[in-house]
Amino acid sequence: MKKAVVLLSGGIDSYTVAAIARKDGFILYALSFDYNQRHKYEIQAARRIAESLSVKQHIVSQLGFLRDIGGSALTSSIPVPENRSDMSDIPVTYVPARNILFLSYAVAWAEVLGACDIFIGVNAIDYSGYPDCRPEFIAAYQQAVNVGTKAGVNGQFFCIRTPLIGMTKREIILAGRAVGCDYSLSISCYQADSHGLACGACDSCLIRMKGFQDAGVPDPTQYRIR
Amino acid sequence: MKKAVVLLSGGIDSYTVAAIARKDGFILYALSFDYNQRHKYEIQAARRIAESLSVKQHIVSQLGFLRDIGGSALTSSIPVPENRSDMSDIPVTYVPARNILFLSYAVAWAEVLGACDIFIGVNAIDYSGYPDCRPEFIAAYQQAVNVGTKAGVNGQFFCIRTPLIGMTKREIILAGRAVGCDYSLSISCYQADSHGLACGACDSCLIRMKGFQDAGVPDPTQYRIR
Repeated sequence: MKKAVVLLSGGIDSYTVAAIARKDGFILYALSFDYNQRHKYEIQAARRIAESLSVKQHIVSQLGFLRDIGGSALTSSIPVPENRSDMSDIPVTYVPARNILFLSYAVAWAEVLGACDIFIGVNAIDYSGYPDCRPEFIAAYQQAVNVGTKAGVNGQFFCIRTPLIGMTKREIILAGRAVGCDYSLSISCYQADSHGLACGACDSCLIRMKGFQDAGVPDPTQYRIR
Repeated sequence: MKKAVVLLSGGIDSYTVAAIARKDGFILYALSFDYNQRHKYEIQAARRIAESLSVKQHIVSQLGFLRDIGGSALTSSIPVPENRSDMSDIPVTYVPARNILFLSYAVAWAEVLGACDIFIGVNAIDYSGYPDCRPEFIAAYQQAVNVGTKAGVNGQFFCIRTPLIGMTKREIILAGRAVGCDYSLSISCYQADSHGLACGACDSCLIRMKGFQDAGVPDPTQYRIR
């Protein structure tokens, strides 16, 4: 059985990716981040998910730097936009270089573990328009880490696996259920409170709600306004 | 005046790069890391250098993750090789994905600051053979961050500046002295003690010593064995 590092945020996408990786026979090493994000509750969700998937190891790494530098609604006092109808621009919830940082941690760990596979739940269909979720970024980043690591230059090719990148949220939810995901363990809301109640109005809630609706699957999320 | 983020380790190369950037008129934002490295004394050197260059801000970020995962002589109990005569292979002092991580922090900060320029003192001539110090990695990484950030896709092109990449250590030292570097502030040793005394035997000490010798410049380093 091969090892894989899986980035686990606590949301639907990373949960689904981790469950798919496990189904594919990988031994999972899950990696989450505490960057004092507004939706810090997601770390609890990530812990629940990691446990439910029997991951070999789960590291929740401190990344307070992202809060220190700010620049995002998720890491500063900038309000989270609610009930946006047009999601075509990159919103203020974009966190500078977040996936670049997360993937860099994952590559470092994978190199030490001797793992070639890194799973990330990026999706470029039903998403917030973040540039670090697009296939062109993933391809360029994979190229960079394969020339910038000892493992890479020694022929241990790192593969950044993004099984959800071309799927709709509906397809993701159906794929996740097919591999046993219990989405009541997950949280997507950008401003979930300390009890795990979702706002029902941020981009992430809107995309999640529509996903369950389109999939014809009951939404297990607990919302605080409805 | 334009802002630049400068990765500052406390050694000769990053000091020289920072001094060159300052001479070129940049407002400096210096970034160092505490990853419980064996040569933690270098952080003190970085602080002295940052102060001497009147940087606008100096962040020393915690990156204990690198120690947690280990895999290097600089972050675990693996001994640092001494008096190596053949430096053609990648040694055990290689830290997995270190520059990938450091640059990712720098890009995140640069994006928030609205800075396009990131300076890093990598050098592919008199160096330890680390793959993340080579021009092909820098080029690939720069490509990745320009497609993976909001700033990048909006046309704020990030440039990873590596003015030393093709220089010998002799040339670096002469260039640094020309812009006022006082190398007694710096430390290169991989196993410097808490007083800042260098071992004189690790790769980094050997390369540094030869550099001063070749440059015909007195070596200000204080060694504990000699």
